[in-house]
Amino acid sequence: MFPFVIFTLVTLASADYWSERAKLVTSDSSQAIGSSIILSPKEQEVNKILMNHKLKEYDDGFKNPRTFLPSIHFFKSKSGIEQSPVFDFIRKLPKGASLHSHDTALVSLDYLYNLTYRENLYGSVVKNRLQLHFFDKPPTSDWELVADLRSRNTSFDKFLKSQLSIIVDDPSSEYPSINDVWNRFAETFYTVFGLVAYRPVFQDYFYQTLKELYEDNVMYLEFRGLLPQVYELNGTVYNHVGVVQLYLETLQRFKCDYPDFHGARFIFAPSRNVDNKTVEDYVTITKELRQLFPDFVAGFDLVGQEDLGKPLVDFIPQLLELAETDTRFFFHAGETDWGGTSTDLNVFDAVLLNTTRIGHGFALVKHPKILEEVKKRQIAIEISPISNQVLKLVDDLRNHPGAFLVKSGFPVVITCDDPTFWGAKALSYDWYLAFMGFGGREGDLRLLKQLALNSLEFSAMAEDEKCDALAKWEEQWEVFLDGVVGGGKWGLSDWISVNKV
Amino acid sequence: MFPFVIFTLVTLASADYWSERAKLVTSDSSQAIGSSIILSPKEQEVNKILMNHKLKEYDDGFKNPRTFLPSIHFFKSKSGIEQSPVFDFIRKLPKGASLHSHDTALVSLDYLYNLTYRENLYGSVVKNRLQLHFFDKPPTSDWELVADLRSRNTSFDKFLKSQLSIIVDDPSSEYPSINDVWNRFAETFYTVFGLVAYRPVFQDYFYQTLKELYEDNVMYLEFRGLLPQVYELNGTVYNHVGVVQLYLETLQRFKCDYPDFHGARFIFAPSRNVDNKTVEDYVTITKELRQLFPDFVAGFDLVGQEDLGKPLVDFIPQLLELAETDTRFFFHAGETDWGGTSTDLNVFDAVLLNTTRIGHGFALVKHPKILEEVKKRQIAIEISPISNQVLKLVDDLRNHPGAFLVKSGFPVVITCDDPTFWGAKALSYDWYLAFMGFGGREGDLRLLKQLALNSLEFSAMAEDEKCDALAKWEEQWEVFLDGVVGGGKWGLSDWISVNKV
Repeated sequence: MFPFVIFTLVTLASADYWSERAKLVTSDSSQAIGSSIILSPKEQEVNKILMNHKLKEYDDGFKNPRTFLPSIHFFKSKSGIEQSPVFDFIRKLPKGASLHSHDTALVSLDYLYNLTYRENLYGSVVKNRLQLHFFDKPPTSDWELVADLRSRNTSFDKFLKSQLSIIVDDPSSEYPSINDVWNRFAETFYTVFGLVAYRPVFQDYFYQTLKELYEDNVMYLEFRGLLPQVYELNGTVYNHVGVVQLYLETLQRFKCDYPDFHGARFIFAPSRNVDNKTVEDYVTITKELRQLFPDFVAGFDLVGQEDLGKPLVDFIPQLLELAETDTRFFFHAGETDWGGTSTDLNVFDAVLLNTTRIGHGFALVKHPKILEEVKKRQIAIEISPISNQVLKLVDDLRNHPGAFLVKSGFPVVITCDDPTFWGAKALSYDWYLAFMGFGGREGDLRLLKQLALNSLEFSAMAEDEKCDALAKWEEQWEVFLDGVVGGGKWGLSDWISVNKV
Repeated sequence: MFPFVIFTLVTLASADYWSERAKLVTSDSSQAIGSSIILSPKEQEVNKILMNHKLKEYDDGFKNPRTFLPSIHFFKSKSGIEQSPVFDFIRKLPKGASLHSHDTALVSLDYLYNLTYRENLYGSVVKNRLQLHFFDKPPTSDWELVADLRSRNTSFDKFLKSQLSIIVDDPSSEYPSINDVWNRFAETFYTVFGLVAYRPVFQDYFYQTLKELYEDNVMYLEFRGLLPQVYELNGTVYNHVGVVQLYLETLQRFKCDYPDFHGARFIFAPSRNVDNKTVEDYVTITKELRQLFPDFVAGFDLVGQEDLGKPLVDFIPQLLELAETDTRFFFHAGETDWGGTSTDLNVFDAVLLNTTRIGHGFALVKHPKILEEVKKRQIAIEISPISNQVLKLVDDLRNHPGAFLVKSGFPVVITCDDPTFWGAKALSYDWYLAFMGFGGREGDLRLLKQLALNSLEFSAMAEDEKCDALAKWEEQWEVFLDGVVGGGKWGLSDWISVNKV
């Protein structure tokens, strides 16, 4: 209960003032994510080390606002982040789960680029946009071996690199509006698609995804995918069932190699820019996949730029049909700066359709009753700081609604969306920006711990599996704490000076 | 009460879905500012006209995001705003009160510039910054008549103009950080000070302020001032009491000329960047002014960049002493993007000191308990959209916390801060940006009406005076409505095609 009802502070003596002030400050921070956590003595020691670094970095930003990394575009802040001891700390921290990322933007850009050195990769430039495909023998003369293009034209490789991400030197002038950056974003998916849909690459790509997460101290993945047709050189094509099987085989192989990685689940997330008949087909496919792979296929979503694609409200009969099965929804909703448009009205349908989590939910703060429902029903909000910045929802992450949601204790998870396309890797860059940008000066180890716990709690795991994952995470957490306080490989001296990305 | 508790929407038939959806949408918008207003038939007619224009403009922005004015820097959006029929409508609408602006940045830039043609004005350039002063005879040879400077050097006038505002061609590169723009902002105050502190100019300036507000259909002003020493050519200097008398005399003259203008009040708002002894002096001055001018001097505030100046917490004993008198506070607090710093912690002290209104309060959304208190105690939040944009708190006004505050029904008033310095005029530019940027697609005449009512309700007027002002405003409102529906001078054809600024 709030300690001030109707009071006459004007008559307070100075001593009373300070005591009332302390109560109000405490009361204000008592809702924040992590505020209910009581740190053990060991955690307190680790927190002290963390906060020494955080406060130095935060207060430097306060003095020199130009240098504060969450307020700088990620294309320009990335190298600065990699110099931060706080980032180093976050990389090593067991972060639990990665719950929102997309099938063909999962790995690091370096790895994606290296895939272009594989044999049998052909390229064809159509309207200044590179198409890629593996062939035994190309079907037309429009296709040329990437190896030949590369050796013949010294500028080709630079062009190729530019086609694999949306990174540019001057994002504000090259992407004047959200539609411009989304256009480039969609084109990039198109180029990458031909590269990664080749079966051997497809499996290596997914294996590498898991490896990069594992190395980033993430133990579990839920990712969204379109289930593209995957091909072999001999013409064999895998349909949706075959593709899921490829994911599962790769996951099993990875878990053999890294037994302490907990696992992964798939969310079928095809394009929202389709007609009702196509959504009916999606429903049929989802039902089939849920029946065949109930433990791996977690549920359903629709993807694509919400401002320009179809809103959820266009597909209510189909989605209600799917809801009648035990399929969970993980809808993208409210990835927008607008208010009262088709995009932010998606949050109404997501909630009414009983979504398990909301992707982005940037517009939630403009809808008080939806906020109330989200908190009451504990619908997790998947926040992707870098994605929201580079896809032009917000410039300065201190102004991201995530700051409100974190300070007001909403069920938030921090996610990475499409790390390849902006040159990030796994989860830590987004976690760093959320910690520094949303958590304010006082957000500490309790915030980080709760974000990790949230990521497991709000996953699609069944309760018994969740218990198991939480127990594993607790073990990792203890090892991490011991490492920080114990020095050596995980010690303070180490995480400041070594292991820069 | 919210209609959904624990419900199984998955079993809803389609018809039920639509009815539940309609309820949720209605429930969500029921908290917004203005939502409790029931429009009269005449108001409904006016609203229809308004919304025809608003929706066209809003939906054009949704399709072409680059063109949406609240997401463009004011230096570049101003001419577009002046072309908007919605802006024309807002200019003519009786807006009630202007509650947050500063003594030497009140008039239009054109008027300020024209003051530099007055006789006896001298200039002196020190470190690339122009100083201005009226002299009978300048005290040193460093001063030269502005008329001579102007005729001798063709580029002087361009330089002079640049010294009277913070307008630049490329704000993002010329002001890389908040400290850079505040530095220029402070320098501009310094230049303007010497120009307006000359007694004849001082009184003309204040008269013009009232006139511009009157012409913008604002009926009442509460403004903050430093009470600078005002001078005559003969060496006479007016102290704080004399300066308040000058304001009062001018106000009385204006009210004689424009009897339907309601009035004005003054808030003593000296620099926050001072020691405790100086704040003690402020307290003494405020007490004296409150005693001499109880109906004109409304209360106290401290001004200057909060990030760099002293926080309220440094002056608690002095401020508690002042609170023991019947002096109201109108503190600037939380004009910042930071969280957990001296700047946003000002909101705690403002609330604990029982402030009547909060200036800016940009950081409020990061403090859940303070938000709760602000709503419970009905502490008005003075939001200045353009100021917050040009002083680099937020680029795109759709991301301003004002959108949350408006949609969640907080006691908001829209204010203009320092219109001279960014080339705005009176209140309408800020109202337009708030209406389009915070109100979302659906914000309508009820929002505008409630903002006008709020401006009177949350003023420092005594209750009987407030009743009188509200009655006057109701009359103006009826005339306005009749004008819009009746055609002619105020009619639709007129407010689209004529009266462009």
